[in-house]
Formats: sequence, C-alpha cells, structure tokens
Amino acid sequence: MAVYTDVSDAELQCFLESYGMGRLTSFKGIAEGVENSNFLVETDKGRFILTLYEKRVSEADLPYFLGLMEHLADKGLPCPLPVHDIQGKSLRELAGRPAALITFLEGISARRPSAVQCAALGDVLAKFHRAGADFKMRRENSLGPDGWAQLFDAVKADADSVIPGLAGEIASELDALSGNWPDDLPEGVIHADLFPDNVLFLDATVSGLIDFYFACNDRLAYDVAICLNAWCFESDASFNVTKSRALLEAYQAVRPLGAAEREALPILARGAALRFLLTRTYDWLNRDAQALVQPKKPDEYLRKLRFHRQVRSASDYGLDES
Amino acid sequence: MAVYTDVSDAELQCFLESYGMGRLTSFKGIAEGVENSNFLVETDKGRFILTLYEKRVSEADLPYFLGLMEHLADKGLPCPLPVHDIQGKSLRELAGRPAALITFLEGISARRPSAVQCAALGDVLAKFHRAGADFKMRRENSLGPDGWAQLFDAVKADADSVIPGLAGEIASELDALSGNWPDDLPEGVIHADLFPDNVLFLDATVSGLIDFYFACNDRLAYDVAICLNAWCFESDASFNVTKSRALLEAYQAVRPLGAAEREALPILARGAALRFLLTRTYDWLNRDAQALVQPKKPDEYLRKLRFHRQVRSASDYGLDES
Repeated sequence: MAVYTDVSDAELQCFLESYGMGRLTSFKGIAEGVENSNFLVETDKGRFILTLYEKRVSEADLPYFLGLMEHLADKGLPCPLPVHDIQGKSLRELAGRPAALITFLEGISARRPSAVQCAALGDVLAKFHRAGADFKMRRENSLGPDGWAQLFDAVKADADSVIPGLAGEIASELDALSGNWPDDLPEGVIHADLFPDNVLFLDATVSGLIDFYFACNDRLAYDVAICLNAWCFESDASFNVTKSRALLEAYQAVRPLGAAEREALPILARGAALRFLLTRTYDWLNRDAQALVQPKKPDEYLRKLRFHRQVRSASDYGLDES
Repeated sequence: MAVYTDVSDAELQCFLESYGMGRLTSFKGIAEGVENSNFLVETDKGRFILTLYEKRVSEADLPYFLGLMEHLADKGLPCPLPVHDIQGKSLRELAGRPAALITFLEGISARRPSAVQCAALGDVLAKFHRAGADFKMRRENSLGPDGWAQLFDAVKADADSVIPGLAGEIASELDALSGNWPDDLPEGVIHADLFPDNVLFLDATVSGLIDFYFACNDRLAYDVAICLNAWCFESDASFNVTKSRALLEAYQAVRPLGAAEREALPILARGAALRFLLTRTYDWLNRDAQALVQPKKPDEYLRKLRFHRQVRSASDYGLDES
C-alpha cells in the first residue's frame, strides 16, 4: 500500500486530456500495490486506476506487463485493461515516472480466503495459464533460483539479526533445492505473485486479477506452489488441506497437472516459500524509516518453508494419488 | 494519508449489514486524513467513506464532529453526511475502533490553489461560519494558546535539533502572543484545519469540505487566519497577496469582518502559524519509524510565522482600509 509520488493538478489534467478522458471528478491515492503509486481516478468516462511505476519496477519490463494484461483481458480473464491514449499508447509518463491508466475492477480481496474462494482461485489460475499459452513476449523470472542466491548474498551477513539461525537455514535450503530444482516441467506465463491481495471477489466469483508486476515465464506448477503458500495457510501457520484440495481440484478441472508436476509440487512449494522468505528478509533488513510502507516480518515464510520440508508427497496437499 | 487498522471480511460485512447497505462491491484503503484510517466503500446503494477513528481523536468528541457535519449538510454546505444505521446511530464500532460511514463527495483537492479557488474557499468559509451559528454543541479548541504552551513544554528540549534557534524563537513568540491574543472577537464553530487537502473542487466550485476532526468553538477570524496561512503562500514561502485578497473579499461578501477582527488579523495569523509550527515540530520529534505517514518538516511554518511578524496591518493581506 503506498503513494510514493505526488502529482500536480496541471500535470494530471494534461495527462488525462491525452486520453480524451473528459472532466476529472475524483482523484484519490489508494493503499494498494507495494511496488508502485496507485490512484483511483474518476472522470465523466468512468473509473480508472492510475499507476506510477516506482524504481523497483524496471521500465523495460512494462510493455510485457501491459501487453499481458491486454492479452488476458482479450481472452476473457478478469484483468484490468490498459487504456490507450489518443495516439494509441498505453505507457506514458507522469510526474517524471512511467505511468499507465488501467480500467477499474469491482470486487474486494479476501482477507481470510475460504475454501470456496480457494477453489475459485484454482479455477482462474488454470484459465490464466491456458490463456497465456499464445502470449508472444517473454520475461525471465528474476526471482528464480539464480535470484535467490543473489538475495542470499545480500542478506546473509545480517539474516541472523532478523531470526536467529536464519542464515544457516536458508543456506542449507538453497543447497538442497539447487540440486533438485525441476527442469522438465511445462512452462508458460505465470503471475508469480497471486496473493489474496491481488485477487478481487464479488461473493465467491473472481472479479479481478491485479498487480501483474512480477509476471514472467516459468514453470506453471511453480505458480500453483506460490498460491498454495499464499492461500492455504491459516494465520497460525497451520496448513489447511481442505483449502489446498479445493484449489488443486478446481485447477485440475481446467488444466490437469502432469505426473512430473505432481511429483515436483513439494519441492516447488519449498522454492516458493524460500523466494518470499528471501525477499521479505531483504525488505526487512533494508526497510526505510521514511517509507510509507513497512515490510512484513519474514518469519511467516520460514514456518511455511519448514512445513513443506516435511511434506512427503503431493498427497499431503490433498492431491489424489493417480 | 493512512490506513492504520485492518478490517476483516466478516467484521466489514456485519458492519455494513447494520446499515442495510446491500452488497459490497469495492473496498479500498485511501491515502487521506492524517489522523484516521479511511476506506472507500462501494455497495449497491452508493459510495461511502468509512472512517475508523484512531487514538489521536478523542471518542468523546465524535458526536460533536458527526453532529456538525449533519448540521452543516442540512444547511446546504457541501459536507459529507454521516449515514445512520438501521437503529438510527451514526457512530458505531468496527475492528475495535469507533467508526462512522459518511457519504462520498466528488471533487479533487487543489495541490496549488489558484486565486479563483482562494475566492471560492473564502465564500464557503463564510457560509460555514454563518451556518454554524445555531449549532448547539460546543467543543473547546484544544490547540489554542493554552495548548500551544503545553506543546512547547513537550518540544522545547529538542526543538533546536529540528531547526537551530527554534526553541528561543517559539518562546519569544508565545510571550508576544500571550499578552496580545484578542479576547473580544465574534466566536462560533470553526473548521480549524481547512487546508487545501480538506477542500474538494469540481472546476472552480467547492464540492466538498472534509475532515472535521479539529472543528471547535473559537474566534471566527482565527479560522480565516488559518486559511491565509494554508492557502496564500507559494511553495517558496512567499505570500501571494492576490490570493489573500481574493479569499478575504469573497469571505466578506458573505460575512463582513468587523473592525476588531480586521485589526486582529495579523496577530491571529501569527497564532495560526505558531499552532502549526508547534504541532509539526511535535510530530517531527515524535515521528515513528514504523508509521505509514511521515510528518512534514516544520520549517515551512517558521517562515510563515516570520512573514506575519513583519506585517503592519491587515492591508498587507490585501484587506481594504475602511
């Protein structure tokens, strides 16, 4: 949640005119999206989200993110649609930042997802993976195993100040995964950050998928593993197998997981937990007293990682043996 | 700008049901209001602002603030209207905090107000003062001269660490004002915090006055002096007399200032500058590294105070001699 960059009246008016958006009737900074500044903009023509991309998002990646949203919206996924200005561009500049105007989506994110919502998520995630199959652009996952090693280099000296023993635990996990990270799984476009914050619901229906700024090309089942981490643990760190079963069954009704994907699920889930443990440790150590947003303490993901380490097979996630 | 308190799905649903508000379609934390947590809530019945009152607002004062909004909205002022629940209450509780649902107002606040907007502000401020005349409740201004002395006690040891010489300058200003603070001016309900952030415009028309959480009973001309400070300085701290003349003329077209009020204007403006200098110094010294909001450095108000100290009469604010 954040508004990092302020926008002057004149700049904003000029920006909106280039879209032919009519009269501005409301403009409010919203507490959404950790990486960027977001504003809810209302004009005679409708409601929009204005995003100013802050320095953590690489400008070179923006055409991929915006293109992907258009591609998926075209296929009927509930994604925001980047608005094109009168010259046809969807990526512009405002207040010295890259900026885009995207359509507003109704819905509210689940603070504590139910099993029914986990099923809805599984369904839409599989549709996302299918719809991405013919997307032509490509972006590497900068937060895959190579990225983890770099993050670990950056945090290892101070990690034990966050949680005693953390550096050693991460080191041995990196070791274990580096020899076992599956290489032969189906790949495609993944969201890579599909946390409950980034999914809007109207009742039990998914009305919006948002925040595509970690999307990349990677193993599809890794995206499933990220969602198991983000959606299926309770706040006391216990794993809710009813929720994971609901998620996986709904996913497989649209896109069945192959045998190699099922077998790899525990190791992918460990990798996903490690990825968020590393970024949260990094963010925690590099938190800025001046920032509007204070990062989350990383221990939640250490507990999740430990859970996945003791999983024996995908059936522990509620996946039927087959 | 802030969202201090998170709200769970179940709590929110239950809260909205008690208003008979229909189905929730959107819920977003908004970056507005320094003291409280604010959310933009949309249901089938319309758009609303949900405010959770954080600890800096005294719960005992909430009936005054909510009652005042209703009183002013009744008189045609563009104020948010507190919504009553099905039992008739406008003040409820949510997530362990006092909470109210108020109507959403269109409009955007001016980041750099024009002279035309200053005139619109002067007009609506005078109407506010007239409309408040028969409001029956009363609230003392806790940030009047007695409050300044208390704030100074709290900051004097460290004030020089913020700006060298600040403690001495505040002390001599407090001295000067304590002997001269005018006692015989017309009183009534004042907003007391009518900064550009708290005024919404559609084009040059004021469409909303918001954030009533400093409102109190005090000298009406002191409210004018607060607005001169908040609306008529440029970002380089120069005073724009065209803007102040526009503000004062429009104010007087609705509610002419008496001779004593005109004469007192420079000292009231010094008091207003000192009030914000003190609270900003206090907030700066007591800033919390964990907070979502970082306070503004107080030097802006020191420069404003120095300007008012060299003003010889209200004509320096563009007020015609009469």
